[in-house]
Amino acid sequence: MKLGDIGEFGFIDRIAPVGMVRPEGVIKGIGDDCAVMSLSGPEYLLVTTDLLVESVHFILDWAPAEIIGAKALTVNLSDIAACGGVPRDAFISIAIPPHIDLDWLDGLYRGLSDAARASSVNVLGGDTTRSKGHLVINVAVTGLVRPQEVLFRHTAAAGDIVVLTGPTGRSGAGCDLLLRGERRDDSSARSLIAAHLEPRAHLREARILAESGAATAAIDVSDGLSSDLAHLCKDSGLGAILREESIPVSPDLVRAGMELGKDPLDWVLHGGEDYVLLAAVKPEELTLIMETAARKGCTFFPIGEFVAGAGIELIRADGTRLPITPRGWDHFR
Amino acid sequence: MKLGDIGEFGFIDRIAPVGMVRPEGVIKGIGDDCAVMSLSGPEYLLVTTDLLVESVHFILDWAPAEIIGAKALTVNLSDIAACGGVPRDAFISIAIPPHIDLDWLDGLYRGLSDAARASSVNVLGGDTTRSKGHLVINVAVTGLVRPQEVLFRHTAAAGDIVVLTGPTGRSGAGCDLLLRGERRDDSSARSLIAAHLEPRAHLREARILAESGAATAAIDVSDGLSSDLAHLCKDSGLGAILREESIPVSPDLVRAGMELGKDPLDWVLHGGEDYVLLAAVKPEELTLIMETAARKGCTFFPIGEFVAGAGIELIRADGTRLPITPRGWDHFR
Repeated sequence: MKLGDIGEFGFIDRIAPVGMVRPEGVIKGIGDDCAVMSLSGPEYLLVTTDLLVESVHFILDWAPAEIIGAKALTVNLSDIAACGGVPRDAFISIAIPPHIDLDWLDGLYRGLSDAARASSVNVLGGDTTRSKGHLVINVAVTGLVRPQEVLFRHTAAAGDIVVLTGPTGRSGAGCDLLLRGERRDDSSARSLIAAHLEPRAHLREARILAESGAATAAIDVSDGLSSDLAHLCKDSGLGAILREESIPVSPDLVRAGMELGKDPLDWVLHGGEDYVLLAAVKPEELTLIMETAARKGCTFFPIGEFVAGAGIELIRADGTRLPITPRGWDHFR
Repeated sequence: MKLGDIGEFGFIDRIAPVGMVRPEGVIKGIGDDCAVMSLSGPEYLLVTTDLLVESVHFILDWAPAEIIGAKALTVNLSDIAACGGVPRDAFISIAIPPHIDLDWLDGLYRGLSDAARASSVNVLGGDTTRSKGHLVINVAVTGLVRPQEVLFRHTAAAGDIVVLTGPTGRSGAGCDLLLRGERRDDSSARSLIAAHLEPRAHLREARILAESGAATAAIDVSDGLSSDLAHLCKDSGLGAILREESIPVSPDLVRAGMELGKDPLDWVLHGGEDYVLLAAVKPEELTLIMETAARKGCTFFPIGEFVAGAGIELIRADGTRLPITPRGWDHFR
């Protein structure tokens, strides 16, 4: 059997059962944004790790080293955010091929450290080694969260509201512009490209969700809205209904869609790398949490609700119902 | 400036200062076998991470997937051992190129999990992604240690005894046999090759050192005895004297030396990848800890002592003194 036959998530399902040999202290092992552990203290320890490979996850020509470094950290901070936590320390492993020079590496670490400082995260030990091929960066991040505030994927309930902490699709459109060699200097294109290259981890939004007690579950949108909603639905044993008219679509996206001949909704639903949070919120708490978010300078978007059953449906503006097949990112399909 | 000009350790010195932005809770950041953190509990959290790249750290043809998986974990457990800790959970990131099939991956995870189980370590979440070139595996491991038992590199004192928890050089000789395409089936060669491919983390020895209160510092021997002793000396502001007649040299090593035309002492001092521990032990406690080790089925070797000053000298059997220049592994020189 080939890896392509079972896909990334099939592979994860395959390896997950063999790893757990000492269940004490493990609140959640494989299958959430972070591993969640109860060690010796009152707070849970969160651990997440992401491996980034040159020419798979980033293209050296697309951005200065600083921006690549910052994003390598951000994608991990986003996993801590998805669990409602506060990040603490980052550990960088890097395999350096001959075509990378010291100036570039200095830039990478400057970007990493600046992004870390902005979230009060230390960049501590790690591993530095040689590569014969591509540049490889692994970032592992630890965080802490109070047991009563941790957010999982498997705990949403039917009737909960599907809430986004920011618009999706902008990063996917920016990536497509880059892939097509777009270097237009209008502010609309620049803003989409920035959404792809310089995402922000929604750590503030995470704390609003976690502290409120209003959120029952969360995930970060890295594979794409459809895929990550499907993960959350599957793990919670639910389906979901999305309302097209409630889903934010920015004018930049409409403009890029016209230019590239693509339906903007495609990016919104399936784009990926948005690093906003997708949460399940108790319906009776929705108004209060929207107000809290607004007061703290954040915008939450209620885009639908979780329902009993399985599958995701989109109710279009004209009332027709469209089943949504997740087709976000799978590294092996 | 090129990376090769400053070397691996020059690079680490260069990036270390920028990373610390929130000192609270960080007992040791960069520059020891593990990062050591005081989070919310009574025990310190240890974190270590190692990035292994195909054709740099392992050759697919040299060993079955199970053995590569086990070693990927072991090198991290060895870092936890070097800090006197008990490992808890492992997090695997893997970038998989097209030439790796599912059977091979199953073997890798079997080897990882079996090695983890043998030390009561869970293999939890991580990251699975695609590579266009080489297979890359990053393993991050957490552990716990009581504050009064943690072992650092910078705390040895003049007069302390240099203690090895096992012989060195066997792995280096095994690697040389493999590099020269040796596949002889005599037990001597097999045993050296096994020392290279199937090292054991000295977790039991670590606990003997840590619990005894007799050890003042420790490091694991991964770069080579000369290099790792030099790290420990430099961080503690000391020099060291080694006595040739006290350093264990196995008959297998003498045999391989005759065959490959190499002085066995070269492997012993500079070989690397031994994954035994090198500790500083208070002289008045040496007898007791040697007895404790022996009673628990371990053998400790006192091979010299730490002295005021700098540099490492070897006192040969004939009484002559030979300055030892560390020339263990540096990935960029």
